[in-house]
Amino acid sequence: MTKYDGILIKHGFLLTMQGDGLGTIEDGAVAIEGEDIVAVGPTDEVARAHGGAEKVIDARGKAVLPGFVDGHIHTGLSLLRGEAQDVPEIEWMLKTMAPFTGHRKPEHGVKGTALGVLEAVKAGTTTFGEIGGDMGAAAEEVFIPSGVRANLASTINEIGPGSRPDANKPYIFFEDVGEARFREALELIERYDGTGDGRITCILAPHGADMMSEELLLRVKEKAEELGKLAHIHVAQGGREEIQMRLRYGTTTIRYLDSIGYLDDGLIAAHCHQTTDDEVALLASRGVRYASCPASIAGIDGITPPLALFLRSGGRYATIGSDQAPGNGHHNMLVEMKVAALLNKTRHRDPTALPAWKMLRLATAEGAAALGLGDRVGSLEPGKKADVILLDLKAPHMTPVLLKPVRNVAPNIVYSARGDEVTDVIINGAMVVENRKVTTMDEEKVVAEAQRAAEEIAYSAVEDYMAADSVLAKAARKGLI
Amino acid sequence: MTKYDGILIKHGFLLTMQGDGLGTIEDGAVAIEGEDIVAVGPTDEVARAHGGAEKVIDARGKAVLPGFVDGHIHTGLSLLRGEAQDVPEIEWMLKTMAPFTGHRKPEHGVKGTALGVLEAVKAGTTTFGEIGGDMGAAAEEVFIPSGVRANLASTINEIGPGSRPDANKPYIFFEDVGEARFREALELIERYDGTGDGRITCILAPHGADMMSEELLLRVKEKAEELGKLAHIHVAQGGREEIQMRLRYGTTTIRYLDSIGYLDDGLIAAHCHQTTDDEVALLASRGVRYASCPASIAGIDGITPPLALFLRSGGRYATIGSDQAPGNGHHNMLVEMKVAALLNKTRHRDPTALPAWKMLRLATAEGAAALGLGDRVGSLEPGKKADVILLDLKAPHMTPVLLKPVRNVAPNIVYSARGDEVTDVIINGAMVVENRKVTTMDEEKVVAEAQRAAEEIAYSAVEDYMAADSVLAKAARKGLI
Repeated sequence: MTKYDGILIKHGFLLTMQGDGLGTIEDGAVAIEGEDIVAVGPTDEVARAHGGAEKVIDARGKAVLPGFVDGHIHTGLSLLRGEAQDVPEIEWMLKTMAPFTGHRKPEHGVKGTALGVLEAVKAGTTTFGEIGGDMGAAAEEVFIPSGVRANLASTINEIGPGSRPDANKPYIFFEDVGEARFREALELIERYDGTGDGRITCILAPHGADMMSEELLLRVKEKAEELGKLAHIHVAQGGREEIQMRLRYGTTTIRYLDSIGYLDDGLIAAHCHQTTDDEVALLASRGVRYASCPASIAGIDGITPPLALFLRSGGRYATIGSDQAPGNGHHNMLVEMKVAALLNKTRHRDPTALPAWKMLRLATAEGAAALGLGDRVGSLEPGKKADVILLDLKAPHMTPVLLKPVRNVAPNIVYSARGDEVTDVIINGAMVVENRKVTTMDEEKVVAEAQRAAEEIAYSAVEDYMAADSVLAKAARKGLI
Repeated sequence: MTKYDGILIKHGFLLTMQGDGLGTIEDGAVAIEGEDIVAVGPTDEVARAHGGAEKVIDARGKAVLPGFVDGHIHTGLSLLRGEAQDVPEIEWMLKTMAPFTGHRKPEHGVKGTALGVLEAVKAGTTTFGEIGGDMGAAAEEVFIPSGVRANLASTINEIGPGSRPDANKPYIFFEDVGEARFREALELIERYDGTGDGRITCILAPHGADMMSEELLLRVKEKAEELGKLAHIHVAQGGREEIQMRLRYGTTTIRYLDSIGYLDDGLIAAHCHQTTDDEVALLASRGVRYASCPASIAGIDGITPPLALFLRSGGRYATIGSDQAPGNGHHNMLVEMKVAALLNKTRHRDPTALPAWKMLRLATAEGAAALGLGDRVGSLEPGKKADVILLDLKAPHMTPVLLKPVRNVAPNIVYSARGDEVTDVIINGAMVVENRKVTTMDEEKVVAEAQRAAEEIAYSAVEDYMAADSVLAKAARKGLI
């Protein structure tokens, strides 16, 4: 990444996210020294005090805002992009994702992560709420050298080969698997928390209430509290999880988690879409942090996750996430904001649900707060780390820029931008994208290696995939796709 | 536009849309002579017979498909982008759009149309199902010189100043306004139908059953039949129209139109979202053509228009449209396909609804057929006009390209592409976009003129807009946006 002895961004259309709204400054400047934002304000004031910066960026015709927080993401799966969409809910996991499992090697995950980080950072994502396996390698080979900010967690569950022979019987849990994964998760924290000049933070991730015993669930929570870490868990993920919870505990995930004292503001709960309105209200009242993945869940389960409902129920912390490519398609917070707003408007038959300014706050300041990073990033203000993105407002689809009767920059970012408007990305004070080029990664190499790794997995999995006989496999046999 | 003595596109990943599915050819070529496609097939065969083309495009690493059909679009409104979203349904028309009306001059419409066409063609739209006022000027100054294909209609209604003093009383119709607009619509056909080397076709557009008398509605339909033209009409557009139809006819739009014999395969019905399932089934059974605008209607009315339902009900012809920028945000069929699929999946709680391959067919072959252009465009096959687009598959977010176990190019175009992947656009055999540059328009000039025109409208409308006191005006006063 390219570091300068001071960066001054001037004459930008600033969306600072200071206060409760967008915190707009129409002709604004941001001064950066080292890793930090040191001044934000009208250009004439800031430029006078910080004119000596080594790098001066003239942001005329550009929007300047905090980098996006992708609150729930599994970049490693980007190698399976396009192999699992448009299938019945029950087939997604078992007939289109599972056939690849035995063919994925550890090195594939890192290639997928590099690809996912590359596409996301080019579209303005600066903070990754990444959960998965092999997080140590991902940190070492991708998150640290790429210069991005990441809140990593190594998945803890008790699922091994043979755990799920029948979706209608309780999964078989393996205690030794759980122990090994718990150990790995703690090692990740010991080894990587605070690395990368503080860009890398680590938390805990109990996989889900259907994936591990109550005993292990509780031990992970206790450990998180002891370490002062958040726990990031998948909750009420569709019909498969519902069946498991009924079989094992005779209740729903949320009622169960509440009964064991799991729901509080130390928890980030992802998805939560197989839920009643009352259960969402319960999450909100317990102070749980909500990670909502609208495009992914709409695609996989045909359900709009209850983001607007959670906020209307008084939920305080929420973040949105792109989840994974074989469901969502891509890791693009700009398209995600549009999809999230439109899905929630139709869920409530209310076009005022999740307005553009609120989506931008969820994708920046409020998302950062939900991940426990609100004191470091999410807004442009002195004292925060310098995670800043610039977007070109001169593209035809971003024209016009109007300041009256209402400023249209925020709605145009949410409803019209799609990723290639992002010209520059600064993370922790360093230029990670400059004139649309990623400075920290060899883009062609990342793409070529991802292509090769994906072919290795996919082409060796053909027999298993076709044998699973999903609707996609059937359509392929018919020659439709 | 740049014309060559023959174009050969070779080594592309072809989605021809021949047959009932995608008509994939993995290493395919398209040969173009004059305005026409003359050969489509495996590269080795086609290249042998057409190697002498003046322009040879190596499409390795690219998808090659028919250009997109935007079946319902009002490009002129792109100047109001970002000024009307996130408001209650009833406010959209009356409190955020209407305040601009008195400040728009004829020349503004053409500047908006140029902007809308520019952004759309860069994202792969080749056919515009445009409806609006001043269509003669739009044809003359934009659609003909820009080289795109357009199916134009001049709106016919009886609405004048003072027609709508009260949303809860029947609108006042002005017969003379209706006569003038009908005449204008017929003049458009006389003057422009078949111009631009046949790229421009003209049809009729009765505005809506709530906007004109029964007598005029019927006269327009009769005229359309006499001329052998389709009629493109707005149908069941939300609560405002519902109130009008109850007041005037004591029934719903669709029941009313059926009672006067309006529903048949000569009609393109746009929107149709304020409807029961039975009414959608009735449309389908009558053979009506459906123009569905998912993102726009979700944004304006908080409703997913019934596209999947229409098709499940046996509807034969459907097209999707981006409608207008102050609702949708942009004119981008790639993002529209994703939004359409996800919205319809959640409407039916069914992730198999509108799969990627079907969305691509709706945006190409089936959309063209719905507009009555199915014999000319919509697929890559000999005898069709050469409307062809190329998309870069090497971008990080389009990686990997997998041919097995299922080909992932189509889902990646629908769920991951967002517009800037489009490298080349050929319309009627001419290169309209070449290496991402539009050859027929001065992009900077279009953007600058649109900016200026938008400022003229918006800044003179400030007082009217703020006086209308929409939720946006209120939020602006609070400093939130």
